[in-house]
Amino acid sequence: MRPLLDMGALAELPGLLDELAGFGAEEGGGVTRLLYTEPWRAAQLFLAERMQAAGLETRFDRAGNLYGRLQGSSPAEPVVLTGSHIDTVRSGGRYDGAYGVAAGLLAIAALKRVCGTPVRTLEVASFCEEEGSRFPLAYWGSGNATGVYDIGGGEDIADANGITLGDAMRAAGFGLVLQQPCLRRDIGAFVELHIEQGVALERTGRQIGLVEAIVGQRRYAVTLVGASNHAGTTPMSMRADALAGAAEMLALLETRARAAGDPLVATVGRLETLPGTPNVIPGEVRFTLDIRHDEEAELDVFCRETLAAFESVARSRGLGFEARCWLATEPAPMDAGLTRLLERACLARNFSARRMVSGAGHDAQLFAPVCPTAMLFVPSRGGVSHSPGEYSTPAQLMAGAAVLADCLYELGYEQEGRQ
Amino acid sequence: MRPLLDMGALAELPGLLDELAGFGAEEGGGVTRLLYTEPWRAAQLFLAERMQAAGLETRFDRAGNLYGRLQGSSPAEPVVLTGSHIDTVRSGGRYDGAYGVAAGLLAIAALKRVCGTPVRTLEVASFCEEEGSRFPLAYWGSGNATGVYDIGGGEDIADANGITLGDAMRAAGFGLVLQQPCLRRDIGAFVELHIEQGVALERTGRQIGLVEAIVGQRRYAVTLVGASNHAGTTPMSMRADALAGAAEMLALLETRARAAGDPLVATVGRLETLPGTPNVIPGEVRFTLDIRHDEEAELDVFCRETLAAFESVARSRGLGFEARCWLATEPAPMDAGLTRLLERACLARNFSARRMVSGAGHDAQLFAPVCPTAMLFVPSRGGVSHSPGEYSTPAQLMAGAAVLADCLYELGYEQEGRQ
Repeated sequence: MRPLLDMGALAELPGLLDELAGFGAEEGGGVTRLLYTEPWRAAQLFLAERMQAAGLETRFDRAGNLYGRLQGSSPAEPVVLTGSHIDTVRSGGRYDGAYGVAAGLLAIAALKRVCGTPVRTLEVASFCEEEGSRFPLAYWGSGNATGVYDIGGGEDIADANGITLGDAMRAAGFGLVLQQPCLRRDIGAFVELHIEQGVALERTGRQIGLVEAIVGQRRYAVTLVGASNHAGTTPMSMRADALAGAAEMLALLETRARAAGDPLVATVGRLETLPGTPNVIPGEVRFTLDIRHDEEAELDVFCRETLAAFESVARSRGLGFEARCWLATEPAPMDAGLTRLLERACLARNFSARRMVSGAGHDAQLFAPVCPTAMLFVPSRGGVSHSPGEYSTPAQLMAGAAVLADCLYELGYEQEGRQ
Repeated sequence: MRPLLDMGALAELPGLLDELAGFGAEEGGGVTRLLYTEPWRAAQLFLAERMQAAGLETRFDRAGNLYGRLQGSSPAEPVVLTGSHIDTVRSGGRYDGAYGVAAGLLAIAALKRVCGTPVRTLEVASFCEEEGSRFPLAYWGSGNATGVYDIGGGEDIADANGITLGDAMRAAGFGLVLQQPCLRRDIGAFVELHIEQGVALERTGRQIGLVEAIVGQRRYAVTLVGASNHAGTTPMSMRADALAGAAEMLALLETRARAAGDPLVATVGRLETLPGTPNVIPGEVRFTLDIRHDEEAELDVFCRETLAAFESVARSRGLGFEARCWLATEPAPMDAGLTRLLERACLARNFSARRMVSGAGHDAQLFAPVCPTAMLFVPSRGGVSHSPGEYSTPAQLMAGAAVLADCLYELGYEQEGRQ
């Protein structure tokens, strides 16, 4: 395998990302493109124009996923798909998702210019939603494409203003019966390029991360109920302090997670005290719990044992305890053959690479059960993500796009097909 | 000493408390009378009418404190003052503060009816503010009466809507130069009757609590600063999790407070996580810290050592740490002679009593440095307070009022004066 494209063929990438960042741009450098909002819609239309200008056929499906297609000479063969998402978290960065879409678009455009018609059809997807930042669900775009979600399932889910996903979708011009169905049964491979959103590449000085698996996640809403009482007149021995119970649980969680070792991570991101008054003992505490691991069995055991330990803390303190699991995704192993292909592309370009687990969820995990799927990362400065401070250098971005292009060439143009 | 008044002389007490509870009454039984609001103003005017109807001279001072006066035959002698406050917390109960005002009013009215003119002037005060529930300061009423606050000091303090204390005061018709100055230099004794707001009397089956000291308090606002990062991509070993640090501190606080033993209490009533997103490691945590003890030296040592321990936790975790002390009151020992007088009154009526420390702050602590001060409690059902569930039985309320009346008689009518 030898590098095919000159890096110059991808030179538009930083500029295209700058233009994309203009949709939903905020003072302070943040970007907010929530699903089906006007900045989101304008960004999708902008990308469709760019795809058309590059000679790709474009279409939106019923959910608002955008595809740019370079038709292959063997239309019966399954499609080689790349891409990512263009929705963002609130005040997010310029690269999370957008990078994979822009790089996929430019890689396919460059291959078309340089190599002409592929054997297998190449497509770039701009998935409509991945973050779960407007509605309490994530992966709406790739989930509809892979059959995990059904387009009709958006009627019971509402945003913070009470607008249902279905209504928002229709207001943006989607969800119509005459539009293209979402489910794709024709995908032969999916390759996603993304920023790392962590510090593994930066700290080890590598240019490319080869994702071996995306972690499975469990998210819980935990509620502890004690007795709200006067902070001055209730002796320490007569308290049922929900926050003191929570503190014991959190200390225990951290100890257990450290003992379990990488790649297990466990996080309490939000904790609330009720009534939340300085001179009143908290009668209720609610906290979130986010646990991830790339092996289902280990994830299961850790969650089960941790919750059992929490329950025993609650019992010994006379606190009511409830842990509701509201999100559970399986770990998604990437395809070994496709990952080796990416690794060879790195070697050929003399890019340093490391195999790693993705601690973040990605559209690729929806495709992993459906078709051979691979994922590659480029470094994130300081690991910062979901923030205006998200940054990767133009050189880092270009390197990832070049490896993606090489991989798409191998998959799309080589007669023997995948590897 | 023998009981002077028949309990029947105080029979109006439950009814008067019911009427008072109508000012600021809420659905669900709560009462909200925040300083200088209309329900608060109406309640003060109602009490002034009742005082006048009982033959007491009334006056408001510049801060809105209301006094009802029964002039003594020796006007040169210092005044014997009783009373409490009529402001409430949000959705508070019917007895906290109001009880001491209503009982004081009826006790002096009954003494006037039964015993005529006292030697020493008797007064009942309805202090305008004690709770600190509208503005971030407490004891505005008794603080102005004792010179701890200056009436002009309300211009820099605002409520949650940005209205300054000064503006609120003027809007309620107070704060005018022509009104009576607040500072009282003529008080010879202060006796406050209050509900316990704890369970010590209920659990020990006593009718009256004799307060030996009101605890000193320290309140801190603690801020921990770590690094907000992706919950999935940041290994446990690379985190600066502000909430994990806070959990370690809270566990430590509880252990230390239990080891210190009664009457020390330490409470974290509110804790906030920032950004407060389930899948983001908290980069900042803010929590309140409330520590109380009836001995200044022990309070000091506990606070100093606890904050030093917190700081060492923060240092070992690479977290920024700040603890700002925003309230510090000294423990207030009550007058031994006055407390013995109350104890004798209990004995004479065959009421069971116990000496105790008040873990809650009260107006009495403002008077303790100024004049001989005493305080007595009646039981609170379940220790519940600052809540619509606050309750003491009519018999409990009447018992406290009778002891107060006996004490006021001894102080006001006996020729030899105090004991």
